Amino acid sequence: MAAQLQDFSSEPSVAKYHTAHPLCPLTASEISTTADLVRSVWPANIDLRFKVITLDEPAKKSMVPYLEAEHSGASLPEIPRKAFVSYYIRNTDRFHEATVNLSSGKVEKNARLGPNDHGNGDYDEILQVEKNALEDEKVKEAIKKLQLPEGTAVCADPWIYGSDGNNDDERMYQVFLYMRDPNNANELDSNHYAFPLPISPVIECNNYEVIRIEYLPTGADNTVHEPRPWQSKPANEYVHEYQTLRTDLKPLRVVQPEGASFSLTPTGETGHVLAWQKWTMRVGYNQREGMVLYDVRYDGRPLFYRLSLSDMNIPYADPRSPFHKKSAYDLGDAGAGAMANNLQLGCDCLGHIQYLSAVITDDKGVPTPLENCVCVHEQDAGIGWKHTNYRTGRAAVVRNRELVLQSIITVSNYEYILAFMFNQAGELIYEVRATGILSTQPIDHELDKVGVPFGTVVHPGVLAVHHQHIFSLRVDPMIEGHANRLVYDEAHALPITPDWNPYGVGYEVSETLVETASGLDLNADTNRTFKIQNPSVRNPVNGKPVAYKIHVPPFQKMLSHPQSFNWKRAEFADHNIYVTTHADKELYSGGWYTNQSRGGTGVRSWAARQDSVVDTDIVVWIQFGINHVPRIEDFPVMPCEILKVSLKPVNFFERNPALDVPPSVQSFNQSVAVSEAHHQPSQELVVGKEECCATGERERESKL
Amino acid sequence: MAAQLQDFSSEPSVAKYHTAHPLCPLTASEISTTADLVRSVWPANIDLRFKVITLDEPAKKSMVPYLEAEHSGASLPEIPRKAFVSYYIRNTDRFHEATVNLSSGKVEKNARLGPNDHGNGDYDEILQVEKNALEDEKVKEAIKKLQLPEGTAVCADPWIYGSDGNNDDERMYQVFLYMRDPNNANELDSNHYAFPLPISPVIECNNYEVIRIEYLPTGADNTVHEPRPWQSKPANEYVHEYQTLRTDLKPLRVVQPEGASFSLTPTGETGHVLAWQKWTMRVGYNQREGMVLYDVRYDGRPLFYRLSLSDMNIPYADPRSPFHKKSAYDLGDAGAGAMANNLQLGCDCLGHIQYLSAVITDDKGVPTPLENCVCVHEQDAGIGWKHTNYRTGRAAVVRNRELVLQSIITVSNYEYILAFMFNQAGELIYEVRATGILSTQPIDHELDKVGVPFGTVVHPGVLAVHHQHIFSLRVDPMIEGHANRLVYDEAHALPITPDWNPYGVGYEVSETLVETASGLDLNADTNRTFKIQNPSVRNPVNGKPVAYKIHVPPFQKMLSHPQSFNWKRAEFADHNIYVTTHADKELYSGGWYTNQSRGGTGVRSWAARQDSVVDTDIVVWIQFGINHVPRIEDFPVMPCEILKVSLKPVNFFERNPALDVPPSVQSFNQSVAVSEAHHQPSQELVVGKEECCATGERERESKL
Repeated sequence: MAAQLQDFSSEPSVAKYHTAHPLCPLTASEISTTADLVRSVWPANIDLRFKVITLDEPAKKSMVPYLEAEHSGASLPEIPRKAFVSYYIRNTDRFHEATVNLSSGKVEKNARLGPNDHGNGDYDEILQVEKNALEDEKVKEAIKKLQLPEGTAVCADPWIYGSDGNNDDERMYQVFLYMRDPNNANELDSNHYAFPLPISPVIECNNYEVIRIEYLPTGADNTVHEPRPWQSKPANEYVHEYQTLRTDLKPLRVVQPEGASFSLTPTGETGHVLAWQKWTMRVGYNQREGMVLYDVRYDGRPLFYRLSLSDMNIPYADPRSPFHKKSAYDLGDAGAGAMANNLQLGCDCLGHIQYLSAVITDDKGVPTPLENCVCVHEQDAGIGWKHTNYRTGRAAVVRNRELVLQSIITVSNYEYILAFMFNQAGELIYEVRATGILSTQPIDHELDKVGVPFGTVVHPGVLAVHHQHIFSLRVDPMIEGHANRLVYDEAHALPITPDWNPYGVGYEVSETLVETASGLDLNADTNRTFKIQNPSVRNPVNGKPVAYKIHVPPFQKMLSHPQSFNWKRAEFADHNIYVTTHADKELYSGGWYTNQSRGGTGVRSWAARQDSVVDTDIVVWIQFGINHVPRIEDFPVMPCEILKVSLKPVNFFERNPALDVPPSVQSFNQSVAVSEAHHQPSQELVVGKEECCATGERERESKL
Repeated sequence: MAAQLQDFSSEPSVAKYHTAHPLCPLTASEISTTADLVRSVWPANIDLRFKVITLDEPAKKSMVPYLEAEHSGASLPEIPRKAFVSYYIRNTDRFHEATVNLSSGKVEKNARLGPNDHGNGDYDEILQVEKNALEDEKVKEAIKKLQLPEGTAVCADPWIYGSDGNNDDERMYQVFLYMRDPNNANELDSNHYAFPLPISPVIECNNYEVIRIEYLPTGADNTVHEPRPWQSKPANEYVHEYQTLRTDLKPLRVVQPEGASFSLTPTGETGHVLAWQKWTMRVGYNQREGMVLYDVRYDGRPLFYRLSLSDMNIPYADPRSPFHKKSAYDLGDAGAGAMANNLQLGCDCLGHIQYLSAVITDDKGVPTPLENCVCVHEQDAGIGWKHTNYRTGRAAVVRNRELVLQSIITVSNYEYILAFMFNQAGELIYEVRATGILSTQPIDHELDKVGVPFGTVVHPGVLAVHHQHIFSLRVDPMIEGHANRLVYDEAHALPITPDWNPYGVGYEVSETLVETASGLDLNADTNRTFKIQNPSVRNPVNGKPVAYKIHVPPFQKMLSHPQSFNWKRAEFADHNIYVTTHADKELYSGGWYTNQSRGGTGVRSWAARQDSVVDTDIVVWIQFGINHVPRIEDFPVMPCEILKVSLKPVNFFERNPALDVPPSVQSFNQSVAVSEAHHQPSQELVVGKEECCATGERERESKL
């Protein structure tokens, strides 16, 4: 990554620096100090545009002894506090990364990055791109061709430009234009995705000026015609004022009269230790990954060193320019941390909720609070286990209580609800819900009832192209220790043999060891099930190695051709599982810099080293996803599509770990019997001033 | 099925019979009357053993006009009220089925069934088999060889005998023996599955006498040795008195201060119409299927004529006799209705619950109440949809409220929690949770830490053999009408061509029509998605046919060989999807009589007719399951393993049908913010006299 390395190790040191815990996210003052230190290595007249200022996590070889000392009560080793920075010389393409040692007050590394390493988007940049696109004279002229009604508001959705090898070395934005319902100009939340426009400016990123205007193909083929006069059509609003709301939904509330069962103990200003039902872990947060969980243990037994969403990729199916470049990396291009919603009590989360806040940088190196970006709460998930002895009639039953850590990210049109969940049977579940608004583009009205094979018409003149959502979860295990292995079980029918399996019913399960770093796939025909195992720790009952198995649904792998940029860049999207050896900087399976990337820097490349992954420090990457074939019901906002990945203990415990959950009894649960005589009067729900999130996400001016 | 048809049409008629609705389950008096009528065709000294007395549902060609008249307010056609009966001449193998016309008071059909048609088990029979097995002198002698401690209680788990073609024409039971912890003789709920015994009596079903005693192989091969003296080992209890219970779980309650949003309107004594959030349906129940849903509509638009679990099969992997015959059909062999738990307020169901009860027959034709066999309640299932406009900061969010109809069945050692769920986005979810206790068999202690490839040692001396759980959901659709078709979508990458797809990113979705009845499979590599479509009703926006798509997880198909009885009998277990034309009596995909069956009477055989299934009255059978490779954590009771099948609208509506759900707001939801200062005092939970279900399931004497 480094082109020119600057050495600052001879700089004078500053006063001894103290941090609460090496894994705490950077504090506001650490962010400020880091920005100041980076600025200090440049002449005073050089203005920097910061993309990322985040914790440079300590090397695992330092962190593991630290955690061991922490758990055993021994004295804690010193670990220097460092920050990672990526930044531009403002209004240039000179992109740098730096490592700042906050303990010593030195910039340890400062390197200009290569020509195809580009920074992620940032909020102010997005707003600047929108503004410049809409105010550009040539864009206005193009829009005039549409003969829009007087006073129509045109909106801009800036998109990461993408990669196709055509003069795309410089960083740019592809801006898709929409308009709001001309009959409702004052409704700022009118759904502009119902009115896509066939004009797309391209903006360069030194001065954010429009460099060209593209016209979009709106038929079934490559034909691009001049923008035609706009044809009136209805709006398609999602905000509640435009719906005839149901009146028969009765409130359902979750109450915890004795409070919640979890504890979140602050560490310093930004960190937390979470304890709940024998689970303990450290909760972190950063601009790119959002939530990160460290040092996850059950009943003190080590399970996961680090858990995080590694990236996601959303490639689109329309082969025509410029849509062929639509391939979003919502973490690498934007940041799941940066994009997180400010969760509102009673809107996003039900029950007894604790909110966590975070702080990230803005483009000026100024710490920016992310209030309520994570919510933590319990939920009831039905029955946990039950057995009734039919001879006595005695039922033993417990409920399944889950702990949820949830964050919601808005990436332009789409939302993703991301949650880590834990239960009392020692299981971890990672859940993704996809919701929000389809990315839309214009289609000629003649095709409304005809359609095209690469998308679905979801509103008159509105095409939602098929696309894949492919997620990559990074699991850095420490199942009873750091030397783990990956194996998989498969079930095979036994052949019919007269002496052993004469009736043809027998089958066996055999285990295969994964020896080298590689990409691997599920196989439903053999019930292939991957397990992360520690063979040096044996189950006391049956002698089998302790393990955690992976339950993940299959998905259609990336459909883009291996020759395509899409395929080369989304290095995780071709296999259900990747396994590699641990390397401190190998965190993001699509590579460190995804914006307009070329590939070669992600998990497929790391796996190609073919390191031995047997009984060593391994990392498992779990992919899952959806091939989203839009339907009418997905517009104007789609009902949540839910994906879950589970990690479950296998021969890790000596019996069901949830056996000691107290029995489910009425005095505890206080359910209420509804009688048949109970009437359900209808009720008009008045939704008035009280709105969810009417106060806005972050303090910002509305730029329109 | 009929061997000898008796004609009773000349019998005198009785007074005109009235029923509330043709789809109501039989009432208690209808059950009694039916039993009396069947008895009346036999000499008085002939005693009958009833296996099933259930509603003989009206032919669809009668029912459809009835429902149409009902919905349109027209006058209702007359439909005769009929009951289906299967019964034995008590203490013989003479098995019959009869159809009784309750409206006319006549037995319309009464036929002796063939030699390989056997009836399901019944509760009294199970108890008789247990008793006779344990009291048999030869069994007692065999048990003596084990040299069990004085006063040890031996238990018997009667198993449906199974099929293997070896002198298995007569109906029998294979009884597996266990003992309870000898150190705890007074604990009637001691987990006997921790102490399996190597002795297995076989019992015939005329007089329920032991006809032979088998000894079980307990090693890794076929070797069967004489029962060895019992070796002491620990117990493995699941009831709470033997656990050190967690003390830090705080109550979580679901409250609905204005009541629940659903209404269940009784029809007659046994039926209900359910209405909730635009869903309406008729709820039924019977001995075999448990819950059945009829006439399911959303916003008055027809969706499903009939929904039910069709059967489930659990074949085991141990090829050795007698285990090779273990292959349970929990609906056909026992009855999901008959086996249903009596659900207890606050134990099984959380929140505002309405219970439904049912009535079935016992073996004497006496109506037997099943109190609280179904519970109905709402639950919150997280966020339903959300979008935040980042420019204004306004979030629009609604929660996902679900309606649950749930039943829990205990089939000897295992439990299944079966639920139909509906949500506000027009989606139906069928959920199965597998829990309860693994079926266990003895293994020599030398193998505890060695194991065998066809099972897992879960306790010293206790082997839990691998097995598959394969479920079959019967969906009789009427998507906007009764003429439907089955299609599937697949997504295929476009080839790279310079003029159309030069960047190699394009892909298309194509639809394939299923023309003839057949078994079909999923294919994750093409994202194959099945849809039930009505091409005569088109979406007004995009012109596509209205449809419902099926989301079902893949499963490893039955591993038993096609030559095996297992495979021939479980006709549904070899494909993810079956589609057939509707036939009134084609309800159970494993065949009508599953006990010791031969195959040839289930869905594979019906599909082999290769009827055209295009734009006609079709039935779709959806299979799903688990290959259960036991782990230590599954013992002594397994944490729920959850499977879900979803049916979701595709181009059925004009937009997201949940758009009119009122926004999620704090005044409605009343969440509570937990502060960081909140302490979580630990609390000792006293579990005293108040127990779930201590009062027992049904009134019965405890036979020990």
